[in-house]
Amino acid sequence: MKYVIGLDYGTDSCRAVIADALNGREIATAVKYYLRWKEGKYCDPNASRYRQHPLDYIEVLEESIKEALSKAPAGTAENVVGMAFDTTGSTPVLIDEKGTPLALRPEFSENPNAMFVLWKDHTSVKEAAEINALAKKWEIDYTAYEGGIYSSEWVWAKILHILREDEQVRGAAYSWAEHCDWMPALITGNPKPETMPRSRCAAGHKAMWHPSWDGLPSEAFLTGLDPLLAGFRSRLYKETYPSDVKVGTLTAEWAERLGLTTDVAVAVGAFDCHMGAVGAQIKPGDFVRVIGTSTCDIMAVPYKEIGDKLIPGICGQVDGSVIPGMIGLEAGQSGFGDIYAWFKRVLEWPVRRLVGKSNLLDLETKERLINEVIEIIIPELTKEAEKIPAGVSSVIATDWMNGRRTPDANQLVKGAITGLTLGSSAPQIFRALVEATAYGSKAIVDRFLENGVEIKEMIGIGGISLKSPFVMQILSDVLGMPIKVAKTEQACAFGAAMFAAVAAGVYEKVERAQDAMGQGFAFEYHPNNENHAIYMELYKKYQQIAFFTENELTQIN
Amino acid sequence: MKYVIGLDYGTDSCRAVIADALNGREIATAVKYYLRWKEGKYCDPNASRYRQHPLDYIEVLEESIKEALSKAPAGTAENVVGMAFDTTGSTPVLIDEKGTPLALRPEFSENPNAMFVLWKDHTSVKEAAEINALAKKWEIDYTAYEGGIYSSEWVWAKILHILREDEQVRGAAYSWAEHCDWMPALITGNPKPETMPRSRCAAGHKAMWHPSWDGLPSEAFLTGLDPLLAGFRSRLYKETYPSDVKVGTLTAEWAERLGLTTDVAVAVGAFDCHMGAVGAQIKPGDFVRVIGTSTCDIMAVPYKEIGDKLIPGICGQVDGSVIPGMIGLEAGQSGFGDIYAWFKRVLEWPVRRLVGKSNLLDLETKERLINEVIEIIIPELTKEAEKIPAGVSSVIATDWMNGRRTPDANQLVKGAITGLTLGSSAPQIFRALVEATAYGSKAIVDRFLENGVEIKEMIGIGGISLKSPFVMQILSDVLGMPIKVAKTEQACAFGAAMFAAVAAGVYEKVERAQDAMGQGFAFEYHPNNENHAIYMELYKKYQQIAFFTENELTQIN
Repeated sequence: MKYVIGLDYGTDSCRAVIADALNGREIATAVKYYLRWKEGKYCDPNASRYRQHPLDYIEVLEESIKEALSKAPAGTAENVVGMAFDTTGSTPVLIDEKGTPLALRPEFSENPNAMFVLWKDHTSVKEAAEINALAKKWEIDYTAYEGGIYSSEWVWAKILHILREDEQVRGAAYSWAEHCDWMPALITGNPKPETMPRSRCAAGHKAMWHPSWDGLPSEAFLTGLDPLLAGFRSRLYKETYPSDVKVGTLTAEWAERLGLTTDVAVAVGAFDCHMGAVGAQIKPGDFVRVIGTSTCDIMAVPYKEIGDKLIPGICGQVDGSVIPGMIGLEAGQSGFGDIYAWFKRVLEWPVRRLVGKSNLLDLETKERLINEVIEIIIPELTKEAEKIPAGVSSVIATDWMNGRRTPDANQLVKGAITGLTLGSSAPQIFRALVEATAYGSKAIVDRFLENGVEIKEMIGIGGISLKSPFVMQILSDVLGMPIKVAKTEQACAFGAAMFAAVAAGVYEKVERAQDAMGQGFAFEYHPNNENHAIYMELYKKYQQIAFFTENELTQIN
Repeated sequence: MKYVIGLDYGTDSCRAVIADALNGREIATAVKYYLRWKEGKYCDPNASRYRQHPLDYIEVLEESIKEALSKAPAGTAENVVGMAFDTTGSTPVLIDEKGTPLALRPEFSENPNAMFVLWKDHTSVKEAAEINALAKKWEIDYTAYEGGIYSSEWVWAKILHILREDEQVRGAAYSWAEHCDWMPALITGNPKPETMPRSRCAAGHKAMWHPSWDGLPSEAFLTGLDPLLAGFRSRLYKETYPSDVKVGTLTAEWAERLGLTTDVAVAVGAFDCHMGAVGAQIKPGDFVRVIGTSTCDIMAVPYKEIGDKLIPGICGQVDGSVIPGMIGLEAGQSGFGDIYAWFKRVLEWPVRRLVGKSNLLDLETKERLINEVIEIIIPELTKEAEKIPAGVSSVIATDWMNGRRTPDANQLVKGAITGLTLGSSAPQIFRALVEATAYGSKAIVDRFLENGVEIKEMIGIGGISLKSPFVMQILSDVLGMPIKVAKTEQACAFGAAMFAAVAAGVYEKVERAQDAMGQGFAFEYHPNNENHAIYMELYKKYQQIAFFTENELTQIN
């Protein structure tokens, strides 16, 4: 009997899954929310500042594992042999000489700059622009393997921003770590900055780490950005590791705190989508999409197929970031479900605000009615939009209400809805938005294909892929490709569990863990060829509108 | 004591205003709705077929005058000296040898093709295209004084469509008349097709009538369009008349039916907006806008200022169509209030459909709540949108959800909303739509200015100008012009009353009637110069989006 624990740290909560290492059977699961985050602490949405306290991460670690173990049969804890973490990213924190996040020191316990800077924090737009400007004129373009454009969501921009902004934190900051680096280091007693085993996935996709330039960008580049970065490189890392590598075993203290043994092997961490792709049984030629508020698109391509060829405008290509020994490719849409949610918010306005004003109902009935109505907006829009045949409404939209991540990152582009008539209805607009997100997906898929990356299968994971047959069918119709949907809603945690099994020596490589522990697929969407032909015509218009709004329409705001 | 009656035939109802001919004081007013029309009879909105029965027109004539007289002091009826009609247009009907609309004959009483074809009927799109094609290759471009593009809303397209479609009606059709021709002819006993005095306004703006080619288009042109039109020209008219001309006096029968004397002089009719401009005291250099679901924009320019110079892309320039002796210029936006109403319908969707589904409320409460909420959508959007400073939201829209009337008619263009982000709210979108209608207004105003027509004053009449300070202020800010708003809500009926007074000999010319009977202005909007500067930048973007959607984006539907 061998069990492994996959820990999936999302934006709001941590999910722990205990799985049978031999067959992937789910033994128990538990989800715990970050308390301080839930209260809105340390964040300022108006300034796009999103910070998370390390204590939130520590507390949910203990709570989720204990709860999961309490639901598992007696004797489970003793037979847990491995653990692995996936986290959001880039979510870095400044640390001291001992590898302790500064917010864990009393003097910084309430300072947001001493905490983890969540992936979606956009406070360092200026610093990202400086990195891009310098990289383009430097002898080496350090952004080359990260799609050619450095984002304000990534570690170096965030670290530089905080160093500039906060003198006290700057004085205490010795190095930095990604969330997925720090969790395994913490519980294996390996947190020293220079020796903490670092995630290849985080380093390669977000920190401009690449073997061809001997690791991180040169000291000259970093100090050229700002002398405040002097010395950081030497206090970070040269080597990085894929997640089949074992960081160590639980310290006695952490074994005690988690109710596990000191034999538990802990794997190198990675980002959620990358481990999610593994959990969804990604293999060479598979294009795995985590489809939620946004999408994260992952491929793993053997080096012999892609070599050192750069695919422009994606989010990075990193050896071993998904499957060890293969090049992990990442792309994604900034807005997917978020775009439907935006339209829902627009339609909520009369309900929340105007029903709220009415004197016809008592407060409680009003609140119940409003909640009832808001809950069915998307399902009812879906029902109506499904009845509209492809290509019948003249409404065509783009999917850039949250900017564009890939292809070719551009945070400044905005969304458009065209072809409106006095007869354009809410369901027609909703359908156009769903089609727009599918066109955005096609733009990404085409970028891979145009660069010679073969896509054999498309796999969907994440909420929307399981919950909206309407969206998934349109996606399949637009792409002209079948889409398989992973059965589990916990692909990320399962991916972590597979790596845990490898780190624990149950399998020699993660592909074997995938074979043994994979959860399989729930169903498969097949494209309707007639609709595909219609959508290929509409896609040309989408491209026209997209080109116009990005390149010709001078936006003022 | 001299009284006059202005009769304003709108899309849904007829308004009768009895006014003191000496000072314009309103004595009494009455509004009556078209009964058959209200029931939706003879119409098919899905096919854009809108027909009105002549009996509807006759019934409201009697009812509205009788009701108004009943509200007036005793002795009023005896002292009524004049009457005049304004109507919608082009709203023509096929008539027999006696000038009787065919639907008044028993065999055609239920045949929509024998009824008046309302201005907004779009069944003759194909015929309008044929007229345009032939006019462009003909030695004379008969559309030249109608803006250069013949519309499917206009008489020749409509008549040809019905002649082609309905063999029985074709057999009985001898000639045709406009609604504003037929009303005065009917009650003065002058309905014979060849001699019925015809409205200059209707003939010049809609029937391609112009003195330079001796009246209507040549027989060769008309039969070139279709041999079915053979002979119609000779059974129509050469002469046309402005509305200061008297058609005749009431017949004994109609004096009896209306409760008036046979001394009542009846003026030549005209279209509602043209008489409305007169009622709003238009003078040379004034740009009068009737602002409602769409706009109708009117100017009256002395011949010596404009001569025979053609202003391209407006709805026509006709000597005497507004003020006799001056060139009447007409333009307009296809959608104005209709565009706000469209967005309101989109926002109504969750209220009507989803509140409607709830089991929390009984049917009656539900219905009351839905009506209550829907009624305040526009007022509440206005409140919120007013708080957003000009140029702060990134949302920019165009105003073509109902196509474009001027400048340069194009029924195929559609609306767009750009610059959308996940933060774009319903009030932001509403504000963008209001700004878009103001940009559409600016495009029209600029067309006049570019062609050397001087605009000295801007005057607003119609519902929106009195009811929405928010819309009017943005319009003033975008145009960079002050806008005076006519005090009366019944400018059209008052314009008719002024012409009635001239036809009755109370005044020598309508300008004198305007001076004596004018109702004055309620208030004036002044442009905010800072906002105007912001809007001039945004207007460039509006023009970019407009150009793109019209010329580059190939619409499929």
